[in-house]
Amino acid sequence: MASLDKIMKPKSIAVIGASTKPHTIGSDIMKRLNEYGFKGTVYPVNPKGGVIEGLQAYTNVLEVPGEVDMAIIVVNSKFVLSTIDQCNEKGIKGLVVISAGFKEAGAEGAALEAELLKKVRQYGMRCVGPNCLGVVNTLPEVRMDGCFAETLPVRGDIGFVSQSGALGGGILNILKDLGIGFAQFISIGNQADINAEDAIEYWENEDDVKQILLYMESIQNPANFRRLASRITKKKPILALKAGRSAAGASAASSHTGSLAGSDKAAEALLRQSGVIREYSLEQLFSTAKVFKNCPLPKGDRVCIITNSGGPGIMATDAICEYGMQMAQLTEETKAELRSFLPAAASVKNPVDMIASAPLEHYQKTLTTVLADPNVDMVISIYLPFLGLRDIDVAKALMQIKAEHPEKPIVGVFMTKNEFFSAISEMDVTIPFFQFAEEAVDGLARLNMQRKWMERPMGTFPRYEVDQTRAQAVFDAAKAEGRAELTTRESLDVLDAYGVRVCRAGFARSEEEAVALANKIGYPVVMKMTSKTTSHKTDVGGVRVNMDSEETLRANYRDLIEKLREKGLLEGLEGVIIQEMVKSSRELVCGIADDPQYGPMIMFGLGGVFVEVMKDVTFNLAPLTDIDAHEMVRSVKAYKLLTGARGTTPADVAKVEETLLRLSQLVTDFPSVAELDINPLMISDKNGEAIAVDGRIKVKL
Amino acid sequence: MASLDKIMKPKSIAVIGASTKPHTIGSDIMKRLNEYGFKGTVYPVNPKGGVIEGLQAYTNVLEVPGEVDMAIIVVNSKFVLSTIDQCNEKGIKGLVVISAGFKEAGAEGAALEAELLKKVRQYGMRCVGPNCLGVVNTLPEVRMDGCFAETLPVRGDIGFVSQSGALGGGILNILKDLGIGFAQFISIGNQADINAEDAIEYWENEDDVKQILLYMESIQNPANFRRLASRITKKKPILALKAGRSAAGASAASSHTGSLAGSDKAAEALLRQSGVIREYSLEQLFSTAKVFKNCPLPKGDRVCIITNSGGPGIMATDAICEYGMQMAQLTEETKAELRSFLPAAASVKNPVDMIASAPLEHYQKTLTTVLADPNVDMVISIYLPFLGLRDIDVAKALMQIKAEHPEKPIVGVFMTKNEFFSAISEMDVTIPFFQFAEEAVDGLARLNMQRKWMERPMGTFPRYEVDQTRAQAVFDAAKAEGRAELTTRESLDVLDAYGVRVCRAGFARSEEEAVALANKIGYPVVMKMTSKTTSHKTDVGGVRVNMDSEETLRANYRDLIEKLREKGLLEGLEGVIIQEMVKSSRELVCGIADDPQYGPMIMFGLGGVFVEVMKDVTFNLAPLTDIDAHEMVRSVKAYKLLTGARGTTPADVAKVEETLLRLSQLVTDFPSVAELDINPLMISDKNGEAIAVDGRIKVKL
Repeated sequence: MASLDKIMKPKSIAVIGASTKPHTIGSDIMKRLNEYGFKGTVYPVNPKGGVIEGLQAYTNVLEVPGEVDMAIIVVNSKFVLSTIDQCNEKGIKGLVVISAGFKEAGAEGAALEAELLKKVRQYGMRCVGPNCLGVVNTLPEVRMDGCFAETLPVRGDIGFVSQSGALGGGILNILKDLGIGFAQFISIGNQADINAEDAIEYWENEDDVKQILLYMESIQNPANFRRLASRITKKKPILALKAGRSAAGASAASSHTGSLAGSDKAAEALLRQSGVIREYSLEQLFSTAKVFKNCPLPKGDRVCIITNSGGPGIMATDAICEYGMQMAQLTEETKAELRSFLPAAASVKNPVDMIASAPLEHYQKTLTTVLADPNVDMVISIYLPFLGLRDIDVAKALMQIKAEHPEKPIVGVFMTKNEFFSAISEMDVTIPFFQFAEEAVDGLARLNMQRKWMERPMGTFPRYEVDQTRAQAVFDAAKAEGRAELTTRESLDVLDAYGVRVCRAGFARSEEEAVALANKIGYPVVMKMTSKTTSHKTDVGGVRVNMDSEETLRANYRDLIEKLREKGLLEGLEGVIIQEMVKSSRELVCGIADDPQYGPMIMFGLGGVFVEVMKDVTFNLAPLTDIDAHEMVRSVKAYKLLTGARGTTPADVAKVEETLLRLSQLVTDFPSVAELDINPLMISDKNGEAIAVDGRIKVKL
Repeated sequence: MASLDKIMKPKSIAVIGASTKPHTIGSDIMKRLNEYGFKGTVYPVNPKGGVIEGLQAYTNVLEVPGEVDMAIIVVNSKFVLSTIDQCNEKGIKGLVVISAGFKEAGAEGAALEAELLKKVRQYGMRCVGPNCLGVVNTLPEVRMDGCFAETLPVRGDIGFVSQSGALGGGILNILKDLGIGFAQFISIGNQADINAEDAIEYWENEDDVKQILLYMESIQNPANFRRLASRITKKKPILALKAGRSAAGASAASSHTGSLAGSDKAAEALLRQSGVIREYSLEQLFSTAKVFKNCPLPKGDRVCIITNSGGPGIMATDAICEYGMQMAQLTEETKAELRSFLPAAASVKNPVDMIASAPLEHYQKTLTTVLADPNVDMVISIYLPFLGLRDIDVAKALMQIKAEHPEKPIVGVFMTKNEFFSAISEMDVTIPFFQFAEEAVDGLARLNMQRKWMERPMGTFPRYEVDQTRAQAVFDAAKAEGRAELTTRESLDVLDAYGVRVCRAGFARSEEEAVALANKIGYPVVMKMTSKTTSHKTDVGGVRVNMDSEETLRANYRDLIEKLREKGLLEGLEGVIIQEMVKSSRELVCGIADDPQYGPMIMFGLGGVFVEVMKDVTFNLAPLTDIDAHEMVRSVKAYKLLTGARGTTPADVAKVEETLLRLSQLVTDFPSVAELDINPLMISDKNGEAIAVDGRIKVKL
């Protein structure tokens, strides 16, 4: 498909529905294009003609004399389709449909939107919207403000996609206040054609877009999103606020955008596996953007705090520890150096407390000194107003040192008046400044996440030798009978075909068959009678466990027969199941769950009586990379149980990972698998093997 | 002890160390007192005399002609003691010692501080500080700004205690920007005499203090804090930021204030049991204060959102659900009413989306309508800038409706420019306005916490009939032998004396003794041999379980004797332990842990193999109220295991609670108990009884 150049870097724009009436979208768009100084040509189009923003309006786009790259359409929804026909006739390839009244407005609107998309595809166009706020590109050679937000854009390094139009406008206002600029902005609206995936793909190679921010309520094509994002996040950070986390929120999102929101577990997995940094509030999203704009990635996670007040130093320390980052251990040289100029009452341990009376010079020397410490990866400089030391002077001094030492991230916590923040929002600051310690640490934590993501291998999708034909046969057989649910035997059979280590078992009709089976399976074994007449096996001694030799098995078999004979129950006996005896004090669960929006997910966690209570489980989207599987197993608390805690045999963790990868392969080969549970997946006390003792598979018919 | 009136409401103040030199504390304090218009008399004292802020300085406080209620001391620390002597001579009863160089500065300073406190006590004075920022009272008849923060105070309803001086100053600045005023401020500094407890006790009956905010790094007297706070929080909310949550943070706090910080688990428990709302950042602390200032407590937790943009509505919904509050279900009448005036594209379900074009009138009518809905307890009004509708007009309209409907909390989320927030910070707003949805929900969640605390009974400290003498004897015996650790038998003995249901057991030397014991204990029983020569009991069949009758027991006893004789091991046999057999699939743990700073805590949680991994445990400070115990048991995830999940026998939860209360009584009676573990506390599969199967007690010698 064509790139978004025609839309994002047009040489000429027709505004169809441009208006002379103030405070209308058709007027505002014209005004913004004009005020921001669009470098190309604008052609207002209005059936009534008239002069708009000093330009004579054309009554029809076909009358426009020159070539037109892009049309911004703000006419009533019922005229949109015919307008698109005209655009096609004019040879226009880029559309931004601002008009509302499509999918968001119900069934009729949805039908109209389908028509719109059909035309866009048919004419080889690309289209932003409908029901959107417009697009912005602040590139000096473009300078296109093609949206109707309240304020003119500020140039910066962000590519920003908003799924909510009004919210997008609100955000542009706030960004301006925060002194955060952006490179490009796309309000995707109903995303009939262009969606978030298109935007991030376009921005992958736009050099002036250094970071990508997303506000999303749904993800249209999760697999495509993952494919793109996991590649692009290795080049530039993607920060996403995905709203609709709660069930109620998701339901509100659905009614808002008409899109299926999917479960948040799946969204969480998708973003994590794609290396996207998830934010949980706009405030946090903006804080992070500020930090990414002004900081290099750190080399590690050791943070040093310098401060003129103990309190905020402690709060920052708390936040650093809560994020699992490290407090830098300053070298003896650094401490000696600090001691040489700081007063006796100062603390030269991290947090370095220069005490309230610290003059500007101490800020400068202290920052320079800790930056030079090889044990320090990042620095937080805290300032509280104190007699005569001006905030802005401290800020400037810090930025000067930053210019000389650009290699380590430095953030400022200035617990000072709003005045200071207004002042710096007008300046070209090179350090992110925050009012509160926690915000600064949040930001550093995000830098650290991005660092870890950059260091994390991409991973591969391993393919194991499996018996796909055998699994296919089992599925086919069930399908032939119209059964969605496979029997336990069938389920274990499929798992076995896919190389999952299942508990060995077989059926025997006689003592000799039982012994032969047990010899094949290996001792100890369990024997369970199966009978048409006796369902409560245990009551009649029908379950014998832990038989560790042929001799014991034979004795037990004979004893069972004898007991049943005595009780007159022998007639109903069909035979016995001989099963490998797995001694295990550790039960896990794993499986496959299908999210209607995001597709199949692999689940892993703690099993047994606690699964419902402790909810110690994790989900990743299939297919899993080997790295995904590695991380999944380690991300649950129960992982400690696998490593040999309390004198248990360490589990064969590699095999547990392999089990997950085999499930991933299974559901990739058979997308019709709707649910699969291995419960329990027992860890053998004997040798740490992971053994599927029970299984259940459900398919989509 | 005397109240703080002399300090907080003085009629006359001597500033000892007042200075003519600008940008010194001695100059700034004088300036602030003057500028803010102190209603009483100020006497500057400086050995060199001179005119300070238009007042002739006295060279010594004894020269001051009139009566002096309070002295603010800013002289060098080495002159502080003699200054206090002079103050005493002058009859001054209130001191604010701003001078640093005391406990925070090392051993010498600590000694000086001890001297200071001695004098204060001896002279019957009260003292704020040393090493503090000062005190403020904005009461119109007082108007005392006795601190050296950058800005003059704003009148409001907050009583604010800060343990960190510099931080306190920073906070005062920010509060002013936020338009948050306060009634009184005390910078407690090293809290030699007056601490946070004194402040909250003083404010309990100060009518203009409607809410109390604390910034603390340590709590001096946790028991006293709890006693006071749990009473005062029933009258007015106390919000606390307790820094030093992490180990590194606590260590930083210790070096900062020289005080022992204690473990955060204990601090968390103390605040929770006292009804104090804990905040985790200053930003959150301020947001909450804004909400408490302008909102009544809600009647329930059902929130309604009205918005002109879907996105922030979804984000607010997510936050509401994450706090465990409810999305209000609007009545059919409300929906019909909303439908009567909102456009077709609007959503009349909660969140009510009035769509972007909503005029002022829709805000007014929608807010009035949802406020009238009996299913709505709280309302969030969201506004995003849209063509021509001004933020300030919407804010005013909302406040007008609020004036007519003061009974339900209303908060505003205005995703608009900082300009708006600057403008309203100058106004007397009656609704808290936030820029982001999450902040507003945070605030409502705190209102809801306070509501729940108000509805929560105070609880009582039950006293059970116990055999204290018997427990004393056990402790005495161990002490006599110099043993800190009690044996299992002694530990269970103490628990038994305190009415904890312990696993019944006894020692038998013969078959007859064994049978007699088993008959007393009740079947089924376990029999364990004890031998001087055989330590691996199980290897020689020395452990027999699940014996459910005298017959079985006798058979097993004889069989054991026979087996030992055969193996030549009979000689070493001492006898057998006969023990009640507890069948249980659910193991809990409970116990006592002693925090060096906060004192004994009661612990409860999930036991067994998972205790170390899942960390599903909770702590409360002793003594427990019945309500504390009730809540503890329900606060762990494992609680679900007690209620009969998966077909198990429901546990006798009341008895579990009683067990915790008995432990609380035990450690109250015997504060020398340093550690106590009941592990496991088994829940009997048979009847749900909670039975202490193993116990361990350690005492402080």
